[in-house]
Amino acid sequence: MSGQLTALDSLMKQLASLPGLGRRSARRAALHLLLNKDAALGPLLNSLEVARDSIVECVRCGNLDQNSPCAICTDTKRSVDILCVVEGVSDIWAVERTQSFKGIYHVLGGVLSPLEGVSPEDLNIDPLLERVKGSEIKEVILAMGATVDGQTTAHYLADEITMVNRSVLLSRLAHGVPIGGELDYLDEGTIATALKSRAQI
Amino acid sequence: MSGQLTALDSLMKQLASLPGLGRRSARRAALHLLLNKDAALGPLLNSLEVARDSIVECVRCGNLDQNSPCAICTDTKRSVDILCVVEGVSDIWAVERTQSFKGIYHVLGGVLSPLEGVSPEDLNIDPLLERVKGSEIKEVILAMGATVDGQTTAHYLADEITMVNRSVLLSRLAHGVPIGGELDYLDEGTIATALKSRAQI
Repeated sequence: MSGQLTALDSLMKQLASLPGLGRRSARRAALHLLLNKDAALGPLLNSLEVARDSIVECVRCGNLDQNSPCAICTDTKRSVDILCVVEGVSDIWAVERTQSFKGIYHVLGGVLSPLEGVSPEDLNIDPLLERVKGSEIKEVILAMGATVDGQTTAHYLADEITMVNRSVLLSRLAHGVPIGGELDYLDEGTIATALKSRAQI
Repeated sequence: MSGQLTALDSLMKQLASLPGLGRRSARRAALHLLLNKDAALGPLLNSLEVARDSIVECVRCGNLDQNSPCAICTDTKRSVDILCVVEGVSDIWAVERTQSFKGIYHVLGGVLSPLEGVSPEDLNIDPLLERVKGSEIKEVILAMGATVDGQTTAHYLADEITMVNRSVLLSRLAHGVPIGGELDYLDEGTIATALKSRAQI
Protein backbone atom coordinates (compact mmCIF):
# COMPACT_ATOMS: atom_id res chain seq x y z
CA MET A 1 0.00 0.00 0.00
CA SER A 2 1.34 3.41 -0.82
CA GLY A 3 2.01 6.11 1.75
CA GLN A 4 -0.97 8.19 0.66
CA LEU A 5 -3.61 5.78 1.99
CA THR A 6 -3.55 7.28 5.45
CA ALA A 7 -7.33 7.21 5.96
CA LEU A 8 -7.44 3.54 5.02
CA ASP A 9 -4.33 2.64 7.01
CA SER A 10 -5.68 4.40 10.06
CA LEU A 11 -9.03 2.62 9.76
CA MET A 12 -7.31 -0.76 9.48
CA LYS A 13 -5.07 0.06 12.44
CA GLN A 14 -8.06 1.00 14.60
CA LEU A 15 -9.94 -2.13 13.58
CA ALA A 16 -6.88 -4.33 14.17
CA SER A 17 -6.62 -2.99 17.72
CA LEU A 18 -10.01 -4.46 18.62
CA PRO A 19 -9.70 -7.68 20.61
CA GLY A 20 -10.38 -10.65 18.34
CA LEU A 21 -9.43 -8.90 15.08
CA GLY A 22 -5.99 -9.54 13.63
CA ARG A 23 -4.41 -7.60 10.79
CA ARG A 24 -5.91 -9.80 8.11
CA SER A 25 -9.44 -9.66 9.53
CA ALA A 26 -9.06 -5.92 10.03
CA ARG A 27 -8.29 -5.56 6.31
CA ARG A 28 -11.36 -7.60 5.41
CA ALA A 29 -13.50 -5.63 7.83
CA ALA A 30 -12.24 -2.30 6.48
CA LEU A 31 -12.95 -3.37 2.92
CA HIS A 32 -16.41 -4.60 3.90
CA LEU A 33 -17.16 -1.25 5.53
CA LEU A 34 -15.86 0.81 2.59
CA LEU A 35 -17.71 -1.24 -0.01
CA ASN A 36 -20.93 -0.96 2.01
CA LYS A 37 -20.83 2.59 3.27
CA ASP A 38 -24.60 2.90 3.60
CA ALA A 39 -25.38 -0.59 4.87
CA ALA A 40 -22.40 -1.19 7.14
CA LEU A 41 -20.15 1.82 7.76
CA GLY A 42 -22.99 4.25 8.43
CA PRO A 43 -24.84 2.09 10.97
CA LEU A 44 -21.57 1.19 12.75
CA LEU A 45 -20.62 4.87 12.98
CA ASN A 46 -24.03 5.69 14.33
CA SER A 47 -23.94 2.89 16.94
CA LEU A 48 -20.51 4.01 18.09
CA GLU A 49 -21.66 7.60 18.43
CA VAL A 50 -24.76 6.63 20.37
CA ALA A 51 -22.69 4.30 22.55
CA ARG A 52 -20.09 6.99 23.21
CA ASP A 53 -22.69 9.56 24.13
CA SER A 54 -25.20 7.45 26.02
CA ILE A 55 -23.53 4.50 27.71
CA VAL A 56 -22.15 5.24 31.14
CA GLU A 57 -20.86 3.33 34.15
CA CYS A 58 -23.48 2.71 36.82
CA VAL A 59 -22.48 4.64 39.96
CA ARG A 60 -23.87 1.89 42.14
CA CYS A 61 -22.61 -1.39 40.64
CA GLY A 62 -20.20 -0.47 37.84
CA ASN A 63 -22.30 -2.00 35.06
CA LEU A 64 -22.43 -0.26 31.68
CA ASP A 65 -25.85 1.11 30.79
CA GLN A 66 -27.65 4.08 29.29
CA ASN A 67 -28.72 5.07 32.79
CA SER A 68 -26.94 5.38 36.10
CA PRO A 69 -28.00 3.72 38.37
CA CYS A 70 -28.39 1.01 35.72
CA ALA A 71 -31.44 -0.96 34.67
CA ILE A 72 -30.45 -3.86 36.93
CA CYS A 73 -29.91 -1.69 40.02
CA THR A 74 -33.24 0.10 39.52
CA ASP A 75 -35.27 -3.01 38.59
CA THR A 76 -37.80 -3.34 41.40
CA LYS A 77 -38.41 -6.98 40.48
CA ARG A 78 -34.86 -7.95 41.50
CA SER A 79 -33.88 -8.89 45.05
CA VAL A 80 -31.65 -6.31 46.64
CA ASP A 81 -30.66 -8.68 49.43
CA ILE A 82 -28.40 -10.85 47.29
CA LEU A 83 -25.31 -9.30 45.72
CA CYS A 84 -23.13 -10.99 43.13
CA VAL A 85 -19.55 -9.64 43.03
CA VAL A 86 -17.92 -10.09 39.60
CA GLU A 87 -14.56 -9.20 38.09
CA GLY A 88 -15.85 -7.28 35.07
CA VAL A 89 -18.89 -6.07 33.19
CA SER A 90 -18.70 -9.00 30.77
CA ASP A 91 -19.24 -11.29 33.77
CA ILE A 92 -22.55 -9.51 34.47
CA TRP A 93 -23.54 -10.22 30.87
CA ALA A 94 -22.48 -13.85 31.25
CA VAL A 95 -24.53 -14.34 34.43
CA GLU A 96 -27.51 -12.45 32.95
CA ARG A 97 -27.51 -14.75 29.92
CA THR A 98 -28.18 -17.68 32.26
CA GLN A 99 -31.41 -15.94 33.38
CA SER A 100 -30.95 -17.70 36.70
CA PHE A 101 -29.90 -14.86 38.98
CA LYS A 102 -32.35 -12.22 40.14
CA GLY A 103 -30.21 -10.29 42.57
CA ILE A 104 -27.93 -7.31 42.03
CA TYR A 105 -24.26 -6.97 41.06
CA HIS A 106 -21.02 -5.31 41.99
CA VAL A 107 -18.20 -4.96 39.46
CA LEU A 108 -14.70 -5.12 40.98
CA GLY A 109 -12.91 -3.99 37.85
CA GLY A 110 -10.33 -6.78 37.98
CA VAL A 111 -8.73 -9.13 40.47
CA LEU A 112 -5.90 -8.73 42.93
CA SER A 113 -2.63 -9.63 41.25
CA PRO A 114 0.71 -9.03 42.97
CA LEU A 115 2.47 -10.02 39.73
CA GLU A 116 0.63 -7.41 37.67
CA GLY A 117 0.74 -4.86 40.48
CA VAL A 118 -3.02 -4.84 41.16
CA SER A 119 -3.59 -4.09 44.84
CA PRO A 120 -6.86 -3.58 46.78
CA GLU A 121 -6.90 0.18 46.20
CA ASP A 122 -6.91 -0.40 42.41
CA LEU A 123 -10.19 -2.29 42.63
CA ASN A 124 -13.72 -1.17 43.38
CA ILE A 125 -13.53 -2.66 46.91
CA ASP A 126 -14.25 0.26 49.25
CA PRO A 127 -17.60 1.00 47.56
CA LEU A 128 -18.40 -2.73 47.89
CA LEU A 129 -17.74 -2.64 51.63
CA GLU A 130 -19.86 0.50 51.90
CA ARG A 131 -22.71 -1.32 50.14
CA VAL A 132 -22.45 -4.37 52.38
CA LYS A 133 -22.03 -2.43 55.65
CA GLY A 134 -25.30 -2.15 57.49
CA SER A 135 -27.42 -2.66 54.38
CA GLU A 136 -30.21 -5.08 53.60
CA ILE A 137 -27.81 -7.38 51.73
CA LYS A 138 -28.09 -10.89 53.24
CA GLU A 139 -25.85 -12.84 50.88
CA VAL A 140 -22.77 -11.94 48.85
CA ILE A 141 -21.79 -14.34 46.07
CA LEU A 142 -18.08 -13.96 45.32
CA ALA A 143 -18.25 -14.93 41.64
CA MET A 144 -14.61 -14.51 40.67
CA GLY A 145 -13.11 -16.86 38.11
CA ALA A 146 -11.61 -20.14 39.32
CA THR A 147 -8.09 -18.81 38.80
CA VAL A 148 -5.39 -18.31 41.42
CA ASP A 149 -5.84 -14.52 41.35
CA GLY A 150 -9.63 -14.83 41.29
CA GLN A 151 -9.65 -17.08 44.34
CA THR A 152 -7.10 -14.96 46.20
CA THR A 153 -9.36 -11.97 45.58
CA ALA A 154 -12.40 -13.88 46.83
CA HIS A 155 -10.57 -14.83 50.07
CA TYR A 156 -9.45 -11.24 50.59
CA LEU A 157 -12.98 -9.95 50.02
CA ALA A 158 -14.47 -12.57 52.33
CA ASP A 159 -12.22 -11.34 55.15
CA GLU A 160 -12.96 -7.68 54.48
CA ILE A 161 -16.70 -8.19 54.21
CA THR A 162 -16.83 -10.18 57.46
CA MET A 163 -15.07 -7.28 59.17
CA VAL A 164 -17.75 -4.76 58.17
CA ASN A 165 -20.77 -7.07 58.40
CA ARG A 166 -20.59 -10.29 60.42
CA SER A 167 -24.10 -11.42 59.59
CA VAL A 168 -23.81 -11.50 55.81
CA LEU A 169 -23.72 -14.95 54.21
CA LEU A 170 -20.75 -15.44 51.87
CA SER A 171 -20.85 -17.92 49.00
CA ARG A 172 -18.94 -18.82 45.85
CA LEU A 173 -19.83 -20.52 42.57
CA ALA A 174 -19.65 -24.32 42.58
CA HIS A 175 -16.59 -25.89 41.01
CA GLY A 176 -16.85 -29.05 38.93
CA VAL A 177 -17.29 -30.59 35.53
CA PRO A 178 -18.76 -28.03 33.11
CA ILE A 179 -22.09 -29.03 31.55
CA GLY A 180 -21.31 -30.81 28.29
CA GLY A 181 -17.70 -31.31 29.38
CA GLU A 182 -16.00 -34.64 28.77
CA LEU A 183 -13.71 -35.90 31.52
CA ASP A 184 -11.09 -36.81 28.95
CA TYR A 185 -10.63 -33.15 28.02
CA LEU A 186 -10.71 -31.74 31.57
CA ASP A 187 -7.69 -30.83 33.64
CA GLU A 188 -6.86 -32.88 36.73
CA GLY A 189 -7.63 -30.01 39.10
CA THR A 190 -11.23 -29.78 37.93
CA ILE A 191 -11.77 -33.54 38.10
CA ALA A 192 -10.23 -33.71 41.58
CA THR A 193 -12.48 -30.87 42.75
CA ALA A 194 -15.54 -32.45 41.17
CA LEU A 195 -14.73 -35.76 42.91
CA LYS A 196 -14.26 -34.09 46.28
CA SER A 197 -17.52 -32.13 45.93
CA ARG A 198 -19.44 -35.10 44.52
CA ALA A 199 -23.19 -35.05 45.11
CA GLN A 200 -25.44 -37.95 46.03
CA ILE A 201 -27.79 -39.04 43.26
CA MET B 1 -29.14 -8.33 29.06
CA SER B 2 -32.26 -6.31 29.68
CA GLY B 3 -34.34 -4.71 26.96
CA GLN B 4 -33.19 -1.18 27.80
CA LEU B 5 -29.63 -1.71 26.58
CA THR B 6 -30.47 -0.79 23.01
CA ALA B 7 -27.35 1.30 22.42
CA LEU B 8 -25.14 -1.54 23.60
CA ASP B 9 -27.11 -4.20 21.72
CA SER B 10 -26.99 -2.18 18.53
CA LEU B 11 -23.23 -1.65 18.88
CA MET B 12 -22.69 -5.38 19.39
CA LYS B 13 -24.90 -6.19 16.45
CA GLN B 14 -22.99 -3.84 14.18
CA LEU B 15 -19.65 -5.21 15.35
CA ALA B 16 -20.83 -8.80 14.94
CA SER B 17 -21.77 -8.08 11.33
CA LEU B 18 -18.14 -7.36 10.47
CA PRO B 19 -16.47 -10.25 8.67
CA GLY B 20 -14.22 -12.13 11.09
CA LEU B 21 -16.08 -11.08 14.24
CA GLY B 22 -18.52 -13.52 15.81
CA ARG B 23 -21.00 -12.69 18.56
CA ARG B 24 -18.56 -13.45 21.33
CA SER B 25 -15.74 -11.36 19.83
CA ALA B 26 -18.23 -8.57 19.13
CA ARG B 27 -19.13 -8.53 22.84
CA ARG B 28 -15.45 -8.35 23.80
CA ALA B 29 -14.83 -5.63 21.23
CA ALA B 30 -17.83 -3.58 22.40
CA LEU B 31 -16.69 -3.83 26.01
CA HIS B 32 -13.14 -2.88 25.04
CA LEU B 33 -14.47 0.19 23.20
CA LEU B 34 -16.77 1.26 26.03
CA LEU B 35 -14.13 0.83 28.72
CA ASN B 36 -11.63 2.81 26.62
CA LYS B 37 -13.76 5.59 25.18
CA ASP B 38 -10.86 7.98 24.75
CA ALA B 39 -8.17 5.54 23.68
CA ALA B 40 -10.20 3.19 21.49
CA LEU B 41 -13.77 4.28 20.74
CA GLY B 42 -12.87 7.86 19.88
CA PRO B 43 -10.05 7.05 17.43
CA LEU B 44 -12.14 4.31 15.76
CA LEU B 45 -15.06 6.72 15.33
CA ASN B 46 -12.72 9.29 13.89
CA SER B 47 -11.12 6.83 11.44
CA LEU B 48 -14.54 5.67 10.29
CA GLU B 49 -15.70 9.23 9.72
CA VAL B 50 -12.57 10.14 7.78
CA ALA B 51 -12.85 6.92 5.75
CA ARG B 52 -16.53 7.54 5.01
CA ASP B 53 -15.90 11.09 3.89
CA SER B 54 -12.61 10.74 2.07
CA ILE B 55 -12.20 7.25 0.58
CA VAL B 56 -13.73 6.88 -2.87
CA GLU B 57 -13.61 4.39 -5.72
CA CYS B 58 -11.08 5.26 -8.42
CA VAL B 59 -12.99 6.04 -11.64
CA ARG B 60 -10.22 4.46 -13.67
CA CYS B 61 -9.35 1.18 -11.97
CA GLY B 62 -11.90 0.69 -9.17
CA ASN B 63 -9.32 0.85 -6.36
CA LEU B 64 -10.28 2.54 -3.09
CA ASP B 65 -8.30 5.68 -2.36
CA GLN B 66 -8.58 9.22 -1.07
CA ASN B 67 -8.24 10.47 -4.64
CA SER B 68 -9.83 9.46 -7.92
CA PRO B 69 -7.97 8.59 -10.12
CA CYS B 70 -6.12 6.79 -7.34
CA ALA B 71 -2.51 7.03 -6.23
CA ILE B 72 -1.59 3.96 -8.30
CA CYS B 73 -3.24 5.22 -11.50
CA THR B 74 -1.57 8.63 -11.19
CA ASP B 75 1.85 7.34 -10.12
CA THR B 76 4.16 8.38 -12.97
CA LYS B 77 6.77 5.84 -11.84
CA ARG B 78 4.44 2.95 -12.74
CA SER B 79 4.25 1.37 -16.20
CA VAL B 80 0.93 2.08 -17.88
CA ASP B 81 1.56 -0.62 -20.50
CA ILE B 82 0.97 -3.55 -18.17
CA LEU B 83 -2.48 -3.98 -16.63
CA CYS B 84 -3.32 -6.47 -13.88
CA VAL B 85 -7.00 -7.44 -13.76
CA VAL B 86 -8.12 -8.55 -10.28
CA GLU B 87 -11.39 -9.69 -8.74
CA GLY B 88 -11.51 -7.17 -5.91
CA VAL B 89 -9.76 -4.31 -4.15
CA SER B 90 -8.24 -6.66 -1.57
CA ASP B 91 -6.41 -8.37 -4.44
CA ILE B 92 -4.76 -5.06 -5.32
CA TRP B 93 -3.61 -4.83 -1.71
CA ALA B 94 -2.34 -8.42 -1.85
CA VAL B 95 -0.34 -7.81 -5.04
CA GLU B 96 0.96 -4.46 -3.75
CA ARG B 97 2.25 -6.14 -0.59
CA THR B 98 4.55 -8.27 -2.76
CA GLN B 99 6.17 -5.05 -4.06
CA SER B 100 6.87 -6.96 -7.26
CA PHE B 101 4.38 -5.39 -9.69
CA LYS B 102 4.87 -1.91 -11.04
CA GLY B 103 2.02 -1.73 -13.56
CA ILE B 104 -1.57 -0.60 -13.12
CA TYR B 105 -4.76 -2.40 -12.08
CA HIS B 106 -8.34 -2.99 -13.03
CA VAL B 107 -10.89 -4.20 -10.45
CA LEU B 108 -13.63 -6.46 -11.86
CA GLY B 109 -15.78 -6.39 -8.76
CA GLY B 110 -16.26 -10.17 -8.69
CA VAL B 111 -16.14 -13.16 -10.97
CA LEU B 112 -18.67 -14.64 -13.37
CA SER B 113 -20.81 -17.17 -11.56
CA PRO B 114 -23.85 -18.74 -13.20
CA LEU B 115 -24.74 -20.35 -9.87
CA GLU B 116 -24.79 -17.05 -8.03
CA GLY B 117 -26.33 -15.23 -10.99
CA VAL B 118 -23.30 -13.05 -11.77
CA SER B 119 -23.22 -12.35 -15.51
CA PRO B 120 -20.81 -10.14 -17.55
CA GLU B 121 -22.98 -7.05 -17.19
CA ASP B 122 -22.69 -7.28 -13.40
CA LEU B 123 -18.92 -6.88 -13.59
CA ASN B 124 -16.69 -3.99 -14.48
CA ILE B 125 -15.92 -5.53 -17.91
CA ASP B 126 -17.00 -2.88 -20.45
CA PRO B 127 -14.72 -0.24 -18.88
CA LEU B 128 -11.91 -2.81 -19.00
CA LEU B 129 -12.43 -3.37 -22.73
CA GLU B 130 -12.52 0.40 -23.23
CA ARG B 131 -9.18 0.69 -21.44
CA VAL B 132 -7.58 -2.08 -23.48
CA LYS B 133 -9.00 -0.97 -26.84
CA GLY B 134 -6.47 1.06 -28.80
CA SER B 135 -4.53 2.07 -25.70
CA GLU B 136 -0.85 1.78 -24.87
CA ILE B 137 -1.49 -1.35 -22.78
CA LYS B 138 0.80 -4.12 -24.08
CA GLU B 139 0.09 -6.87 -21.55
CA VAL B 140 -2.96 -7.80 -19.53
CA ILE B 141 -2.41 -10.13 -16.57
CA LEU B 142 -5.65 -11.95 -15.75
CA ALA B 143 -5.00 -12.39 -12.04
CA MET B 144 -8.22 -14.11 -11.00
CA GLY B 145 -8.11 -16.75 -8.26
CA ALA B 146 -7.41 -20.35 -9.23
CA THR B 147 -11.05 -21.28 -8.69
CA VAL B 148 -13.51 -22.61 -11.27
CA ASP B 149 -15.35 -19.27 -11.44
CA GLY B 150 -12.08 -17.33 -11.47
CA GLN B 151 -10.70 -19.33 -14.37
CA THR B 152 -14.00 -19.20 -16.30
CA THR B 153 -13.92 -15.44 -15.93
CA ALA B 154 -10.30 -15.30 -17.13
CA HIS B 155 -11.18 -17.33 -20.24
CA TYR B 156 -14.18 -15.11 -20.95
CA LEU B 157 -12.07 -11.95 -20.54
CA ALA B 158 -9.30 -13.36 -22.73
CA ASP B 159 -11.81 -13.86 -25.57
CA GLU B 160 -13.36 -10.42 -25.14
CA ILE B 161 -10.01 -8.63 -24.92
CA THR B 162 -8.70 -10.38 -28.05
CA MET B 163 -11.80 -9.17 -29.89
CA VAL B 164 -11.09 -5.51 -29.10
CA ASN B 165 -7.29 -5.64 -29.28
CA ARG B 166 -5.52 -8.48 -31.08
CA SER B 167 -2.02 -7.27 -30.28
CA VAL B 168 -2.27 -7.27 -26.50
CA LEU B 169 -0.35 -10.01 -24.68
CA LEU B 170 -2.53 -12.00 -22.25
CA SER B 171 -1.04 -13.76 -19.25
CA ARG B 172 -2.12 -15.42 -16.01
CA LEU B 173 -0.46 -16.07 -12.66
CA ALA B 174 1.61 -19.26 -12.42
CA HIS B 175 0.02 -22.20 -10.66
CA GLY B 176 2.05 -24.48 -8.44
CA VAL B 177 3.26 -25.25 -4.95
CA PRO B 178 2.93 -22.17 -2.72
CA ILE B 179 6.22 -20.95 -1.22
CA GLY B 180 6.59 -22.64 2.16
CA GLY B 181 3.96 -25.21 1.20
CA GLU B 182 4.50 -28.86 2.09
CA LEU B 183 3.40 -31.41 -0.50
CA ASP B 184 1.76 -33.48 2.19
CA TYR B 185 -0.76 -30.73 2.90
CA LEU B 186 -1.49 -29.78 -0.71
CA ASP B 187 -4.44 -30.95 -2.77
CA GLU B 188 -3.85 -33.31 -5.70
CA GLY B 189 -4.87 -30.67 -8.26
CA THR B 190 -2.12 -28.31 -7.20
CA ILE B 191 0.51 -31.06 -7.14
CA ALA B 192 -0.57 -32.33 -10.57
CA THR B 193 -0.39 -28.79 -11.99
CA ALA B 194 3.00 -28.18 -10.38
CA LEU B 195 4.29 -31.45 -11.88
CA LYS B 196 2.98 -30.58 -15.34
CA SER B 197 4.47 -27.07 -15.21
CA ARG B 198 7.74 -28.24 -13.65
CA ALA B 199 10.78 -26.07 -14.35
CA GLN B 200 14.30 -27.20 -15.12
CA ILE B 201 16.81 -26.50 -12.38
